[in-house]
Amino acid sequence: MKKHNFFAGPSILSEFTKDETAKAVMNFAGMDLSVMEVSHRSKEFVAVVDEAVALVKELLEVPEGYEVLFLQGGASMQFCMVPYNLLNKKAAYLNTGAWAKKAIKEGKFFGEVVEVASSADANFNYIPKGYEVPADADYFHFTSNNTIFGTQMSFDPEVSVPLIGDMSSDIFSRPIDISKYDLIYAGAQKNLAPAGVALVIVKTAALGKEFRPIPTMLDYNTHVKGQSMFNTPPCIAIYAALQTLKWYKQRGGIAAMQKDNVEKAALLYDELDRNSLFKAVVPAKEDRSVMNICFVMSEGKEALEADFLALASEKGILGIKGHRSVGGFRASTYNALPKESVQVLVDTMKEFESKN
Amino acid sequence: MKKHNFFAGPSILSEFTKDETAKAVMNFAGMDLSVMEVSHRSKEFVAVVDEAVALVKELLEVPEGYEVLFLQGGASMQFCMVPYNLLNKKAAYLNTGAWAKKAIKEGKFFGEVVEVASSADANFNYIPKGYEVPADADYFHFTSNNTIFGTQMSFDPEVSVPLIGDMSSDIFSRPIDISKYDLIYAGAQKNLAPAGVALVIVKTAALGKEFRPIPTMLDYNTHVKGQSMFNTPPCIAIYAALQTLKWYKQRGGIAAMQKDNVEKAALLYDELDRNSLFKAVVPAKEDRSVMNICFVMSEGKEALEADFLALASEKGILGIKGHRSVGGFRASTYNALPKESVQVLVDTMKEFESKN
Repeated sequence: MKKHNFFAGPSILSEFTKDETAKAVMNFAGMDLSVMEVSHRSKEFVAVVDEAVALVKELLEVPEGYEVLFLQGGASMQFCMVPYNLLNKKAAYLNTGAWAKKAIKEGKFFGEVVEVASSADANFNYIPKGYEVPADADYFHFTSNNTIFGTQMSFDPEVSVPLIGDMSSDIFSRPIDISKYDLIYAGAQKNLAPAGVALVIVKTAALGKEFRPIPTMLDYNTHVKGQSMFNTPPCIAIYAALQTLKWYKQRGGIAAMQKDNVEKAALLYDELDRNSLFKAVVPAKEDRSVMNICFVMSEGKEALEADFLALASEKGILGIKGHRSVGGFRASTYNALPKESVQVLVDTMKEFESKN
Repeated sequence: MKKHNFFAGPSILSEFTKDETAKAVMNFAGMDLSVMEVSHRSKEFVAVVDEAVALVKELLEVPEGYEVLFLQGGASMQFCMVPYNLLNKKAAYLNTGAWAKKAIKEGKFFGEVVEVASSADANFNYIPKGYEVPADADYFHFTSNNTIFGTQMSFDPEVSVPLIGDMSSDIFSRPIDISKYDLIYAGAQKNLAPAGVALVIVKTAALGKEFRPIPTMLDYNTHVKGQSMFNTPPCIAIYAALQTLKWYKQRGGIAAMQKDNVEKAALLYDELDRNSLFKAVVPAKEDRSVMNICFVMSEGKEALEADFLALASEKGILGIKGHRSVGGFRASTYNALPKESVQVLVDTMKEFESKN
């Protein structure tokens, strides 16, 4: 039976990414060696990093003056590196949920953190609007997509201070105006690669301010100078990332991915709005994520939750149990998830409705 | 033609590690999903981490009171995390080469660093002896094997302060008395796994001293509490590490690996000491590494270097060009390198001698 992978992360990768990575584990670049056992300084592997950087720049239309880095430690390490490098006195953060809170916590190690707005009052089921960002903040940090709560800011915020975006769970899902940002980071394990690498896009003019001594590995300048090769990079994760980037290009780039994502999300949200047994967790349509679609049983139908999970499992649907802080269900519909899988989920919901 | 992989790191992995990892990239744990796209919280992947931790403990005979962690950032991140967590006022470091120097540099961000001895006077071609470690040092840090310079401390130093070892390039090559250490760390890309994960073995009683505020990801306590799952771990690298650990167990454990390593190294060093065209870089036999064997052309024969490299290449020998700071050649003979590959190198040296 075909499996439909709705895991929130690590999550579905394209067949192309998996096939090419499996081949390279046995024989990389015709060297008769595994991509796991080749020097990162070999010309064959340096070419992998160079091509991955070039494709990120091409796909996201990264302007001059920005560096593309592949670093270890995931977004969680970026929560720390961002303020270590860029917070002098005060930074502004938007609190849209669990990951934003973690970023805020690390900011406080390095200076004053102003939480400009929060949607905690409604368990983070909306994106705050109309907040003001202090004009003297060193930067404004936001989480573009909230994996756990199913909300998304599908736009580049307009602020008068340097802009920093955690785009871990929606990078490559829509075009971004990179020129508006000082720094964007993304753990790779949603729309790019297996866990173990994070993508960072940083404006070089934002670096070098030296607000405090920075240990070498935590200093963005180290990795800019080393071109992501200051120390041994996570080679196999970067190799897999390159395959995903190639696949994006073959598929028509980011605009094509956006079109698919919007269609997939509409298919599922429309069913959630129609089906009497289910409802979407996020009420405002403009705040709904196209990457993580959270839903619960309708009022009075909560007892059917386990039955639906069992039926979904029979259909090969995996990973739709909701996060404990929201409950219910979460369907993660990342770039690599085929529309067919969403259709199977929708059909299963219809079948469940007709049975109950 | 069979390839003989003498790369210094990332470096040769066992056929078993490669085969099993390639299979799991396509179908992990019978789930019909890749190990790259499965939730790290799935019971199948949690079992991978649990088994890897258990095997490290079994193979290295880790006593009670120690935690085994898999972290990101390589040994380079440990250069920073060790003093962040464990350096209060003063730490002692032994300077045995490039990697020791990098560790020393990071220590200085956090307190006074006493360099107890250095072999810089002879381009690090020996291990300093007879040094004194200040009794009031918070710890003594040493690099057990010096990948670039080909020296090794194949013993656990006796000191009166907490002991910390960077064992990146010789962990699992010989039995260690873990009870003598507060902390051992090792980038995995020599004797364990592909790059992208570091092994840390830490005495829990050494933690929690709170000398300074520590950002969450840099605090060992975070990862002890999270059992290496505080954030998404580098799943595929840990999966590959597990395969290597299983292979070690099948092969007879660490004592068996040590026996093989000593035999392989003897084969090559004996030839270096015999062959009139070559000489070992490290004169003192007790300081010679069994993992990285550095050698140069004999005096007056330097002009033959390129010819030998070309002949070696014809024989399928890869990765023996020496590091620029030593020159000549370096044969890395990690655990997974078969004795046959060393024999091919020795035979090639004999052939070269007879031709010249």
